[in-house]
Amino acid sequence: MSVIYNRVALIGLGLIAGSMAHAMRESGLAGEIIGHARSEATRDIAREIGLCDRICDSAAEAVAGADLVVLAVPVGAMGQVAAEIAPHLAPGATVTDVGSVKQAVIDAVGPHIPEGVHFIPGHPLAGTEHSGPRSGFASLFRNRWWLLTPLPGADPQATDRLSGLIAAMGAKTDRMEPGHHDLVLAVTSHAPHLIAYTMVGVADHLRRVTDEEVIQYSAAGFRDFTRIAASDPTMWRDVFLHNREATLDILGRFTEELFVLQRAIRMGDGDQLFDYFSRTRAIRRGIIEAGQDTEAPDFGRTPGAKP
Amino acid sequence: MSVIYNRVALIGLGLIAGSMAHAMRESGLAGEIIGHARSEATRDIAREIGLCDRICDSAAEAVAGADLVVLAVPVGAMGQVAAEIAPHLAPGATVTDVGSVKQAVIDAVGPHIPEGVHFIPGHPLAGTEHSGPRSGFASLFRNRWWLLTPLPGADPQATDRLSGLIAAMGAKTDRMEPGHHDLVLAVTSHAPHLIAYTMVGVADHLRRVTDEEVIQYSAAGFRDFTRIAASDPTMWRDVFLHNREATLDILGRFTEELFVLQRAIRMGDGDQLFDYFSRTRAIRRGIIEAGQDTEAPDFGRTPGAKP
Ligand SMILES: NC(=O)c1ccc[n+]([C@@H]2O[C@H](COP(=O)([O-])OP(=O)(O)OC[C@H]3O[C@@H](n4cnc5c(N)ncnc54)[C@H](OP(=O)(O)O)[C@@H]3O)[C@@H](O)[C@H]2O)c1
Ligand SMILES: NC(=O)c1ccc[n+]([C@@H]2O[C@H](COP(=O)([O-])OP(=O)(O)OC[C@H]3O[C@@H](n4cnc5c(N)ncnc54)[C@H](OP(=O)(O)O)[C@@H]3O)[C@@H](O)[C@H]2O)c1
Repeated sequence: MSVIYNRVALIGLGLIAGSMAHAMRESGLAGEIIGHARSEATRDIAREIGLCDRICDSAAEAVAGADLVVLAVPVGAMGQVAAEIAPHLAPGATVTDVGSVKQAVIDAVGPHIPEGVHFIPGHPLAGTEHSGPRSGFASLFRNRWWLLTPLPGADPQATDRLSGLIAAMGAKTDRMEPGHHDLVLAVTSHAPHLIAYTMVGVADHLRRVTDEEVIQYSAAGFRDFTRIAASDPTMWRDVFLHNREATLDILGRFTEELFVLQRAIRMGDGDQLFDYFSRTRAIRRGIIEAGQDTEAPDFGRTPGAKP
Repeated sequence: MSVIYNRVALIGLGLIAGSMAHAMRESGLAGEIIGHARSEATRDIAREIGLCDRICDSAAEAVAGADLVVLAVPVGAMGQVAAEIAPHLAPGATVTDVGSVKQAVIDAVGPHIPEGVHFIPGHPLAGTEHSGPRSGFASLFRNRWWLLTPLPGADPQATDRLSGLIAAMGAKTDRMEPGHHDLVLAVTSHAPHLIAYTMVGVADHLRRVTDEEVIQYSAAGFRDFTRIAASDPTMWRDVFLHNREATLDILGRFTEELFVLQRAIRMGDGDQLFDYFSRTRAIRRGIIEAGQDTEAPDFGRTPGAKP
């Protein structure tokens, strides 16, 4: 494929930025990739593994002359980073972000973006529980969705160019209104993460069952929760603080619903449980058909493979 | 390996029994494998795919002359099946079960077991969300735990022989008191399953977010929940009805804990969230070290693989 942006600046060098660097390189989509992360430790690792063509010690330096700037830091750090880079952005450049929450990022970043620079917020629906500069890989985005939430009046050419980069990295793009994005993600990602964190926390507190037993005999169910609950604490703290209303709304519904099932268990109402459990199977089928997951049992974990 | 039981009777021909049949055949552990399932449809499929050496139309016929009988039906059906087979059990035979709950199965099955027959309850900590006679595979139990909850006074020789079979199928055995088993499993499996069912149900009810969006944009978190919530409704109805107290206990703790985190989100207490999320990472690490899961990101789903 051919170069889509001459100089891409990645601010933050974790899982998402690292995967972008690998994916852009694999297909030759960027003339040059410049990186910056807050800590010297991360910048040193990025230099050591050659993650980018050049690593800068300041974000301001990194964005100079870039025609695409990607903000790939935790949601709560977006505003501060935007303020820092704003005076150094090249006219005509595009700024995007990969934050898991959109309205709060727009509110924090938008006001800093100078006239003549295009701000096009985005969110790749792809991730793992790993983080940091060594965790990225080129195929992370392949066949995954990458949602864009362009603001009213966004430049169509700039938006299409960014969509082109995303498609060239293997992802499918769609556009959505930011508030709606935040609600959809509260259902599909944010509330489930909080619930998984909570369940793992319960196990940790339960003294009648030793930690060792919980770990040793971890079965399907809990084991999957622990993976979700191993995700980066900073990232998730910021997601919950910045998608507060939608998350609390979904958690409220969740608790109501849980009480209904809890009561059915207490009352011994097997029919209600059976009906409920039967309905949820259909949703799973839809997700497999939509290509968002594999049908392989147990996620295709190679049975018996050494972990 | 060599034959451990001359004739094994599998009552119920679903995921667990099917996987046992494949595993025993692979290593030549049973002289003969006889199967029975309730419905003609399942028996026909089992015959068609040659799951066992012989499929019987009645459980009574299947257990005749067997030195090992495995009850692999939903927990709520165990008592009835035990009553049916009891008069036909061979003296000196061993009866085991694979139910996900132990005390309730012991209460239901125990009274039917005749003098001179060994009843040794068990539970393989291995499964997938698939069910039925076609879903089993030989490696399901490999490197997984298989807990036995022998009753006081159980015959050591019979127990060791059963442990030998389990080990020969690739699993690790351990022994546990039935009530303790039920509490450990309530934490590691039963409560997480109910929670996953609930969250998928919430998504289904949410009309502001269309079903299609939930499915289309299903991200890590929800996607994992849907897999858990796709498990067999009959099996899970029975698990909850028969491990009621422990499950309700854990769900109560879960709700308290969830309220604490919900409040932290509402109050904007980022430190509390961060600390909580940091603690749960350690548990994940322990599970990987215990060999109960893989460290591969995203469960080793081949990125970009066609589902
Ligand atoms: N992980 C996922 O599953 C996923 C999926 C979709 C979207 N996202 C979003 O993608 C963004 C990045 O996530 P990630 O998973 O790539 O995170 P990550 O692996 O934890 O990396 C975060 C990066 O941001 C840097 N950073 C943190 N605070 C900063 C600050 N104040 N100024 C400058 N740099 C700072 C970190 O630098 P140091 O290493 O020096 O601390 C690190 O390089 C987040 O907004 C997240 O919501 C994540
Ligand atoms: N799946 C798991 O993840 C897992 C893990 C560990 C333990 N277990 C336990 O293993 C047992 C079997 O589970 P599974 O996953 O193998 O289930 P499955 O695939 O749904 O198969 C269940 C089998 O039981 C038969 N059955 C149901 N009711 C019966 C009755 N009243 N009399 C005779 N046969 C009856 C069914 O026959 P039809 O097909 O004719 O209806 C079917 O062959 C359950 O007790 C479960 O708790 C399951």
